Amino acid sequence: MNLKTDEMGNPAPAETANPPLVEVTRGPMVESRHRAAFAVADPGGTVVLHAGDITRPVYPRSAIKPLQALALLETGAAEAFELGDAEIALACASHGGEPRHVEAVADWLARIGCSVGDLECGAHLPSTEQAMIDLVAGGGRPSALHNNCSGKHAGFLSVARHLGYPTAGYIAYEHPVQQRVLGILESMTGLDLGGAPRGIDGCGIPTLGVPLGNLALAMARLAAPDDQPEARQAAAARVRQAMATEPFLVAGSGRFCTKVMELAGERALVKTGAEGVYCAALTTLGLGVALKIDDGAGRAAEVLMGRLLLRLGAIGDAEAGALAGTFRPPVLNRAGRRVGELRVEPI
Amino acid sequence: MNLKTDEMGNPAPAETANPPLVEVTRGPMVESRHRAAFAVADPGGTVVLHAGDITRPVYPRSAIKPLQALALLETGAAEAFELGDAEIALACASHGGEPRHVEAVADWLARIGCSVGDLECGAHLPSTEQAMIDLVAGGGRPSALHNNCSGKHAGFLSVARHLGYPTAGYIAYEHPVQQRVLGILESMTGLDLGGAPRGIDGCGIPTLGVPLGNLALAMARLAAPDDQPEARQAAAARVRQAMATEPFLVAGSGRFCTKVMELAGERALVKTGAEGVYCAALTTLGLGVALKIDDGAGRAAEVLMGRLLLRLGAIGDAEAGALAGTFRPPVLNRAGRRVGELRVEPI
Repeated sequence: MNLKTDEMGNPAPAETANPPLVEVTRGPMVESRHRAAFAVADPGGTVVLHAGDITRPVYPRSAIKPLQALALLETGAAEAFELGDAEIALACASHGGEPRHVEAVADWLARIGCSVGDLECGAHLPSTEQAMIDLVAGGGRPSALHNNCSGKHAGFLSVARHLGYPTAGYIAYEHPVQQRVLGILESMTGLDLGGAPRGIDGCGIPTLGVPLGNLALAMARLAAPDDQPEARQAAAARVRQAMATEPFLVAGSGRFCTKVMELAGERALVKTGAEGVYCAALTTLGLGVALKIDDGAGRAAEVLMGRLLLRLGAIGDAEAGALAGTFRPPVLNRAGRRVGELRVEPI
Repeated sequence: MNLKTDEMGNPAPAETANPPLVEVTRGPMVESRHRAAFAVADPGGTVVLHAGDITRPVYPRSAIKPLQALALLETGAAEAFELGDAEIALACASHGGEPRHVEAVADWLARIGCSVGDLECGAHLPSTEQAMIDLVAGGGRPSALHNNCSGKHAGFLSVARHLGYPTAGYIAYEHPVQQRVLGILESMTGLDLGGAPRGIDGCGIPTLGVPLGNLALAMARLAAPDDQPEARQAAAARVRQAMATEPFLVAGSGRFCTKVMELAGERALVKTGAEGVYCAALTTLGLGVALKIDDGAGRAAEVLMGRLLLRLGAIGDAEAGALAGTFRPPVLNRAGRRVGELRVEPI
């Protein structure tokens, strides 16, 4: 299968059942099953491995933040505001709302002449339980800074500021910042997304339906953008470096993305998205990965991504051993006793 | 299909794909899909409506607490300790850890000469977000009383105390309390469960694999136990009355079970379980319902149960309208904007 051009055409209308790739066991029995599809592509558009229907559009949600972050570099906003690895990593982040995340985004906003009031992502309690407990126990209330997307939004505000656009309404599809991001997504996925299914993401920005195969292609081009324009190559290199250098800022304590990148660095730049999406740019292999759990379960997306990283050789056996609790996590009861596990079908 | 006796035999070994019954939309597109199976049975063992594979065993988890609570009545423990609707409802509950739940369980434990230290269910933060925030903000820590199963465990302790068994280890399969519960489950489901797949539930007690069809039969017998022994009939009536009288104690603020029973009372006694299980005893119709979402998603279990209650006539059209936000809930983004919905395939 080759994704390079417009060959994909319209997604197949027929509903096909994706294979049950992830099982959740309890005692001697499988308790729950997760169906999924995934694609692994090279930058030339060849799908080297896949399962399930990879032509049906899925919403990539937060899994493409590293692609959206390219706008920060390519517009010159990052240079103008002297943004470093920390800010670029935060632009790629679904962070846990831990103090370091929140403080770094607040500092960044101040640097571009904005504040928390300019964020249009909405507020929610920190995703990391300990950060949530600390915030609430200290009498604090969640703000938009705690929103896991606040770094991405600080990036959008930086682009708006740098290019002289109004910051209010920067989350709208028609706003020049989102249109700029759309252009990047189109060139990276190789698709005209003007007619793509368009939803509203949890943080208010547009999320466009893209087939998994094309998402994998976009991630491959992030990993190995050799045939891309020079500015894109440079931007991709900065994003890759930032994620590998600041894995904590991309997610946080105990999180899958952070653990994998702390171990593998640029070899396995992984990014989670809501509703069971996961993407990866495998720099040394020059491959991109995109997966979606049919039912939206994040637990299944993580273990499937872990298996794919191992299968593709982005993570070695010894490293996978160090990540065993993450790649093949136990199911624990409330008292902490192991009562089952998550496991992936052979791929 | 008739479930009355041992006709079911062994579950079919072949893996069949259950139908995708629940869809989660975002904008113009279905973002995630949930496959499921369900059974509706009468007390005679006739399956009057079903979808998917209802012969494969599933762990019923907390959805059968109303059946487990029968032991509290049938052993005489409820009478001996003068337990009322509140305690019996709590024995059937997956409660939100709200102050009224926690205080009532603590009072109950004191009444049987036990305390929080006797609970073997483990501690977790209150399931209801506001109760969690209030606890943490007040400097409190979660105890076993906040565990959503603490009422069920207080019931087990009551049975142990009343029958003179040691309380320590009451969660073990071999403990006389659990064996007593096992006997009730066997007679209600019509199955010999000695060889059933046996897992450990989140709260530490055994959970046994039972086909959905037989779970529906058991719930039908709870709803209409006319052909059951007199003691079982009386116990079932008390459980039904307690759930209908104290729907808040069975779940809590904003919860599906509570909302449905506040509206429908004994007509629709519904009980959620972990990993996408839901059961219902429909008293006026004399029917039992059991469903399981393949992937374990609670959001899908709720809307499927809502649709079944409407389809079966346990809930009227006007009532369903009052529960529209629960039966067909919106997907909201972080700013509270409606961006999609959960919907059920026509059944």
